Amino acid sequence: MTLVGKKFPNVAVNAMNEMGDTFQINVLEEAKKNNKKVLLFWYPKDFTFVCPTELHAFQAALEEFEKRNTMVIGASCDTAEVHFAWLNTKKDDGGIEGVTYPLLADSNRNLANILGILDAQTETFNEETGTYMLEGDNVTYRATYLIDEEGTVFHEGINHMPVGRNVNEFMRLIDAYAHVQKNGEVCPANWEEGKQA
Amino acid sequence: MTLVGKKFPNVAVNAMNEMGDTFQINVLEEAKKNNKKVLLFWYPKDFTFVCPTELHAFQAALEEFEKRNTMVIGASCDTAEVHFAWLNTKKDDGGIEGVTYPLLADSNRNLANILGILDAQTETFNEETGTYMLEGDNVTYRATYLIDEEGTVFHEGINHMPVGRNVNEFMRLIDAYAHVQKNGEVCPANWEEGKQA
Amino acid sequence: MTLVGKKFPNVAVNAMNEMGDTFQINVLEEAKKNNKKVLLFWYPKDFTFVCPTELHAFQAALEEFEKRNTMVIGASCDTAEVHFAWLNTKKDDGGIEGVTYPLLADSNRNLANILGILDAQTETFNEETGTYMLEGDNVTYRATYLIDEEGTVFHEGINHMPVGRNVNEFMRLIDAYAHVQKNGEVCPANWEEGKQA
Amino acid sequence: MTLVGKKFPNVAVNAMNEMGDTFQINVLEEAKKNNKKVLLFWYPKDFTFVCPTELHAFQAALEEFEKRNTMVIGASCDTAEVHFAWLNTKKDDGGIEGVTYPLLADSNRNLANILGILDAQTETFNEETGTYMLEGDNVTYRATYLIDEEGTVFHEGINHMPVGRNVNEFMRLIDAYAHVQKNGEVCPANWEEGKQA
Amino acid sequence: MTLVGKKFPNVAVNAMNEMGDTFQINVLEEAKKNNKKVLLFWYPKDFTFVCPTELHAFQAALEEFEKRNTMVIGASCDTAEVHFAWLNTKKDDGGIEGVTYPLLADSNRNLANILGILDAQTETFNEETGTYMLEGDNVTYRATYLIDEEGTVFHEGINHMPVGRNVNEFMRLIDAYAHVQKNGEVCPANWEEGKQA
Amino acid sequence: MTLVGKKFPNVAVNAMNEMGDTFQINVLEEAKKNNKKVLLFWYPKDFTFVCPTELHAFQAALEEFEKRNTMVIGASCDTAEVHFAWLNTKKDDGGIEGVTYPLLADSNRNLANILGILDAQTETFNEETGTYMLEGDNVTYRATYLIDEEGTVFHEGINHMPVGRNVNEFMRLIDAYAHVQKNGEVCPANWEEGKQA
Amino acid sequence: MTLVGKKFPNVAVNAMNEMGDTFQINVLEEAKKNNKKVLLFWYPKDFTFVCPTELHAFQAALEEFEKRNTMVIGASCDTAEVHFAWLNTKKDDGGIEGVTYPLLADSNRNLANILGILDAQTETFNEETGTYMLEGDNVTYRATYLIDEEGTVFHEGINHMPVGRNVNEFMRLIDAYAHVQKNGEVCPANWEEGKQA
Amino acid sequence: MTLVGKKFPNVAVNAMNEMGDTFQINVLEEAKKNNKKVLLFWYPKDFTFVCPTELHAFQAALEEFEKRNTMVIGASCDTAEVHFAWLNTKKDDGGIEGVTYPLLADSNRNLANILGILDAQTETFNEETGTYMLEGDNVTYRATYLIDEEGTVFHEGINHMPVGRNVNEFMRLIDAYAHVQKNGEVCPANWEEGKQA
Amino acid sequence: MTLVGKKFPNVAVNAMNEMGDTFQINVLEEAKKNNKKVLLFWYPKDFTFVCPTELHAFQAALEEFEKRNTMVIGASCDTAEVHFAWLNTKKDDGGIEGVTYPLLADSNRNLANILGILDAQTETFNEETGTYMLEGDNVTYRATYLIDEEGTVFHEGINHMPVGRNVNEFMRLIDAYAHVQKNGEVCPANWEEGKQA
Amino acid sequence: MTLVGKKFPNVAVNAMNEMGDTFQINVLEEAKKNNKKVLLFWYPKDFTFVCPTELHAFQAALEEFEKRNTMVIGASCDTAEVHFAWLNTKKDDGGIEGVTYPLLADSNRNLANILGILDAQTETFNEETGTYMLEGDNVTYRATYLIDEEGTVFHEGINHMPVGRNVNEFMRLIDAYAHVQKNGEVCPANWEEGKQA
Repeated sequence: MTLVGKKFPNVAVNAMNEMGDTFQINVLEEAKKNNKKVLLFWYPKDFTFVCPTELHAFQAALEEFEKRNTMVIGASCDTAEVHFAWLNTKKDDGGIEGVTYPLLADSNRNLANILGILDAQTETFNEETGTYMLEGDNVTYRATYLIDEEGTVFHEGINHMPVGRNVNEFMRLIDAYAHVQKNGEVCPANWEEGKQA
Repeated sequence: MTLVGKKFPNVAVNAMNEMGDTFQINVLEEAKKNNKKVLLFWYPKDFTFVCPTELHAFQAALEEFEKRNTMVIGASCDTAEVHFAWLNTKKDDGGIEGVTYPLLADSNRNLANILGILDAQTETFNEETGTYMLEGDNVTYRATYLIDEEGTVFHEGINHMPVGRNVNEFMRLIDAYAHVQKNGEVCPANWEEGKQA
Repeated sequence: MTLVGKKFPNVAVNAMNEMGDTFQINVLEEAKKNNKKVLLFWYPKDFTFVCPTELHAFQAALEEFEKRNTMVIGASCDTAEVHFAWLNTKKDDGGIEGVTYPLLADSNRNLANILGILDAQTETFNEETGTYMLEGDNVTYRATYLIDEEGTVFHEGINHMPVGRNVNEFMRLIDAYAHVQKNGEVCPANWEEGKQA
Repeated sequence: MTLVGKKFPNVAVNAMNEMGDTFQINVLEEAKKNNKKVLLFWYPKDFTFVCPTELHAFQAALEEFEKRNTMVIGASCDTAEVHFAWLNTKKDDGGIEGVTYPLLADSNRNLANILGILDAQTETFNEETGTYMLEGDNVTYRATYLIDEEGTVFHEGINHMPVGRNVNEFMRLIDAYAHVQKNGEVCPANWEEGKQA
Repeated sequence: MTLVGKKFPNVAVNAMNEMGDTFQINVLEEAKKNNKKVLLFWYPKDFTFVCPTELHAFQAALEEFEKRNTMVIGASCDTAEVHFAWLNTKKDDGGIEGVTYPLLADSNRNLANILGILDAQTETFNEETGTYMLEGDNVTYRATYLIDEEGTVFHEGINHMPVGRNVNEFMRLIDAYAHVQKNGEVCPANWEEGKQA
Repeated sequence: MTLVGKKFPNVAVNAMNEMGDTFQINVLEEAKKNNKKVLLFWYPKDFTFVCPTELHAFQAALEEFEKRNTMVIGASCDTAEVHFAWLNTKKDDGGIEGVTYPLLADSNRNLANILGILDAQTETFNEETGTYMLEGDNVTYRATYLIDEEGTVFHEGINHMPVGRNVNEFMRLIDAYAHVQKNGEVCPANWEEGKQA
Repeated sequence: MTLVGKKFPNVAVNAMNEMGDTFQINVLEEAKKNNKKVLLFWYPKDFTFVCPTELHAFQAALEEFEKRNTMVIGASCDTAEVHFAWLNTKKDDGGIEGVTYPLLADSNRNLANILGILDAQTETFNEETGTYMLEGDNVTYRATYLIDEEGTVFHEGINHMPVGRNVNEFMRLIDAYAHVQKNGEVCPANWEEGKQA
Repeated sequence: MTLVGKKFPNVAVNAMNEMGDTFQINVLEEAKKNNKKVLLFWYPKDFTFVCPTELHAFQAALEEFEKRNTMVIGASCDTAEVHFAWLNTKKDDGGIEGVTYPLLADSNRNLANILGILDAQTETFNEETGTYMLEGDNVTYRATYLIDEEGTVFHEGINHMPVGRNVNEFMRLIDAYAHVQKNGEVCPANWEEGKQA
Repeated sequence: MTLVGKKFPNVAVNAMNEMGDTFQINVLEEAKKNNKKVLLFWYPKDFTFVCPTELHAFQAALEEFEKRNTMVIGASCDTAEVHFAWLNTKKDDGGIEGVTYPLLADSNRNLANILGILDAQTETFNEETGTYMLEGDNVTYRATYLIDEEGTVFHEGINHMPVGRNVNEFMRLIDAYAHVQKNGEVCPANWEEGKQA
Repeated sequence: MTLVGKKFPNVAVNAMNEMGDTFQINVLEEAKKNNKKVLLFWYPKDFTFVCPTELHAFQAALEEFEKRNTMVIGASCDTAEVHFAWLNTKKDDGGIEGVTYPLLADSNRNLANILGILDAQTETFNEETGTYMLEGDNVTYRATYLIDEEGTVFHEGINHMPVGRNVNEFMRLIDAYAHVQKNGEVCPANWEEGKQA
């Protein structure tokens, strides 16, 4: 069932920043505490080739998001140690050196599981071992959540593994929602800030 | 749990077209039978003011979607009779005269329920009546599904009620996925057809 | 099990009036608060051809019902927006312009479900989707309820879809019941006000 | 849940006619076997004062119902023996001498229970006796069913105990339904045979 | 399991007397309140031919029972209205005019059900209707209960439908029990009052 | 629930006769095999003082029962050995010497349990011992069953411990039932063979 | 599971003594209240031939048991009345005249059931009667319990039906246990009082 | 529930003999295969002081048991290795050197558990560990079983820990049972071979 | 699930020392109370040939363990009596004379069961006996636990039956863990005290 | 419950080698197919500092393990992509360049879950999200398994996070087990190849 119109789950997750600090982020509380919107984007795995382009694209637009009172947070199921290794790998070597927003390290899948965005969606009971077995790597699709200052989700979008995201579209969605917040007007199709609603 | 990476639900739903014909559409089979992609978009209610702009915007882009081998289908939980009345209402009177793609009339909510996109998400048991009571109008959010020729969902995006959609972004996503289908290459962030992947 | 002899369900439902106001009506409380009888009639769908004649017939008899201390309320499962569009459609165009009594917009079927008057009476479990599927449009039959000033139902009558109602018969039933209320006498068959009981 | 639009229950019940014969009637099969409509009316108890007027009124209209290819059947929860005693009691003594249509003797309440028209609607578990106790006499309300030649119910109407029925209204309903059967047209409000539909 | 040696069930039942009064009798409390024994006898149906002879026989012996401090109560599952009609029918017409002891009108079978003396002993679940169906008329066998001043049952006897009862035998049983009450002696076989115990 | 109108339970029980033979009797099969009626009477215990008078009374009437094609069987929960000791005790010493009909020795209570005639009717769970504890001696009341040639029970009567039975009444009941079997007539109250039915 | 090392069950049972008095014995409390050991022995049935020899043997050794501070209690599942009849039967006639210790009359099997010494060990559910049926007479094996002054069982021995008991062996066991109680020494095999432990 | 009158459990258990051989014994099959009686005796633990005296006593009587066609088997819950060490310990050192009958090594308690003779009779669930905890050493009481050539148990006797057994008594019981087998006579109390039964 | 990182189970077990004293050891409390580490090692059975070499090896290293603030405790499922017998058997005779650390006598398997180190891992339900039967001797593998001063397990190692342990390796593990405790440094592979971490 | 003495779980897991190939390894089948022993070692996370020393140590001993017919396999819960990145990181930079044995990438934790070696051992149900939440990173302890050519586990050892392993000890255990395989002899404590068993 969609999270849109509901509060984002109230869960703390390990995170890593470019300084190598390990800390915890509760996205819901982050939004409310800072009175900011949050853009949370998930990518499948560290050290792959398509993912860094997305991480760099969000980094490039970071200033624009800040103008819109929006924090950017990346997320995958890798550990904080792996995030740090990747943050220390040069862009030319497929790394993400230069990324300054925090990265969730949801290695225990607590949050990804709640969101229902893991690729290992079917589990079968293995009688021999008495355990449930997953099919797939148990990593996430390219899911994006836009959350307002109250912690309410106002957009969720999920792309299949090979399809990258469009950073501008998320800015348009934030602008539209901010317009509604301010003017109480509904934004029609293809609405953009500055165009007439 | 996300539908991305899975087949679209195999369910037939009542529909209405601009000729006033009532018929049934099974989105999954429509895609496979015609070997086409499908863009399915949901809007909350007929005879509201923001919704017609989206319906007109999809109509305006219909040729572009056809070039991309993509059928467009609209959907709400109103009845076929109400769709027909709206189709016969002039644009200036808030109607959707001129729309030629079919509209699902999911008045029994069979499909919207499977997709989990109804706003009436909480139900409480009413002891006096012995029935479950819904909060909300039980209409859908602005949900959009992109489905490929095999019926597999490659994008789902859900906007909160007051936030309209961007028709161009769906074309970009279709192009990116078509590129992957053709070239087996992953599309990075902000990728657009013609730009270098 | 029949509602006759029991209180009408204590449930609030969205409603629309000819002014375009959206508000909520709790039929049981309406009767008790105003110390009036209520005639509540359900029709299947807005924007069909047989239904408007019934709505106009009740409108024509409205004064007579008022003389009998009886409120008239119409009801279907369409949304308030659709009701308003229909109220603004001229009679000659199949509309119900001129109707002044309120219309319940039970789009979440909370009340229709309690009354058991929806046509989608069978549901089957769909294993593939893990949801229950309804057969039928999930709209109501032509059901009529007569409710006294205490909220007790003293008549319920349900017609199959294509059979219209007789407004005079409901007046006769109200008169007979009022006679019992006043005189404590039982009304025999074919009894009418003014004829000897 | 309403029986309208469904087949009448397939159940045989004891019955008595004016000849003193005891036999069984299955209303559903009666309709189908004779290719007739059936009007089945329930009254609370034999040997009361309001009930005979209804039984006499249906007797008086019997020819009219026959013209409309409609069988009339009365019903209560008294035994066949009691029906026979009442049939042998003169009208002036509160009896129903002269009634020629059959009377169901549903003393085991098999059919009344299925129809949900018994007044003893609440039962409470008596711990001392280990049985369920009913409140009320466990007799029926004034319920009427109109059933077509296929056994499908096209009207059900239930009056509270003290409110008698209007025989003409049932004729109007039968005419309206017959009109639909013949012409495939829907009958609007207040429609009557001979008036323009 | 037999009621002998236990208290009679503590249940109130509708009753009718020869004056046409409707009231309630709780047999257990009747015995205790009046400090009397009770003979309660059940017969299958009003307006049959064998039953009136039993009712007349108990009437004829009423004085003898009163001498023995014993109330007589008759009972069937007919309604109070039917009892009254029968009480007003002359003996020569198969009626019970002249009976002065009260008659239970257990039309909801609350008491007969507790005693387990209904002929409709098997019920089968009808899947089509979702209800339990009884075989038989759901009327009682010829059961007789002798209850002492404390409400304890000291004899129960049940005859098959066609076998009438012997009023004298119940007097003998009452005498024997009274003898035990008075003398603390056990009464041997064929004991009769006046003969040596 | 009464056994009247049902087959007697199909169970074999140990028995003893006056020759000291131990054998098994299945009352149902005994009736059917011999095409005879059966009078089965239960008494509480061997070696008490009231019981022998009943046993002697049935012995005295044995020839009369045989004339009515009726077998007499006595029964208690004592063992066959105790029955034999009692059969060998002189009448003057409180014994039953001279009794020639068989006596059931239902020491495992299989049959008495089915009939529900044991005085130990309540059992309580003893937590300390983990077993169910009975209150009372677990012996039977004075229960009598009249069974026809098909094994159907047509009378059951149960007296409290201290109240002896009337042998003549059972003959009257057998005569009445035989009259019904032969003439198909119902026997009214106080009916006796030779008197007009 | 063995009772050895546990308290004897805390249950009162009917009993009879040679005076013809009926009273209740709770073996556990008897031991504790009197600060005595108890030898409790069970035999299958009164009025058999092997059982009296055991009863006479325990009677003959009664003085020896009393010297050892030990009460003797016999027990079977016969009633107190049967015990009394047997106590009044001369030894030469197979009786137990002269026995002075009390006999438990466990006719409701409360205690024998807890001890698990009944021969009717298997029960099968009889679907026709809806009851559990026992195989066997439901009488006890030859079980013997030695219980100390605290109520703790220190020996249990059970012989098959046809094998009699050895009174001396129980004296030896009592002596050995008393030796342990006094000296805290364990008694080796074949130990006897006076022989060196 | 006692094993007397039933077959001994059909279970194989590890065993050790004085040669140091490890093998398996199924007591039931041993009796039947060899057409011999079996005396099986259990003692609590190897290497205690009272136990060896019992083991030596059974060894001393072995020839007498063989005359009676009876095998002797000892048993404890120690391992075969411990049995062997004890068999190799001199009698003066508390050992059982010289014992030639086999010893069951029921270290997994399979058989002792079935017999219900372990001292660790209560188990409590330990929430912390999620396991059941036993109180006591989980070793056996001094239980003795006499089994006939068919495998049926004809005596079971259980002594509390500190009370040794009497070898002669078991011989008497075997003689008595053999007498019954041969003569079909029941053996009275204190019966001994050669004395008159 | 591994115990590493968790507290050792909080359970008291019987134990024996070389003085022949029987007492109880709760390993968890022993560690905490004495503020010592514990090395607990399990071996399969007393009086086997491979086991004593392990017991002697731990004895030989006892001083080294004491230097490391570590108590040594041995354990098997034999009884304390058997441990004592083995402690009194000379080394040349396969005994463990000279061992001074305590030995757990887990004869009721309470602790071994919690640890999951018993060889009798499968149990099957035996329908005949109504009990669960184990396969195997129900003795332990060669399991070793290293527990710190807080009672937390920091190593568990389990060898198959025939593979002996290496005492030095446990010293290395203790040293490594102590190094971590002192320096907060992680110990790399093959780390040994004195070598550079 | 320990895996020692059982087959290793029959499960395939993703793996990466130094060539960058992704493939699947089923450890059980690997052992049997190649008729080799397997040493499988788990470490918590890639890109930490203590882990690489263990990986290098096993690499250094690879030839010794091969001499002993033993394959070495490393394992963590990181993805194959992360393994590859680490394999391409120089030793001086904390990488594992030069490692040639395969590394399991158990990112869906299928195998680690079966083995019970994950640190996230407790899960709590989160009512708000309706999911189970893990405490800890859900990575593995330092667990090592030695598996023979049949796939049977003959050693399992688990170290707490900060305690590194001793490569030599695993060689000793393999030698000891091989000795038993060859000679059928049990290896005593501290046994080493070449020393006398």
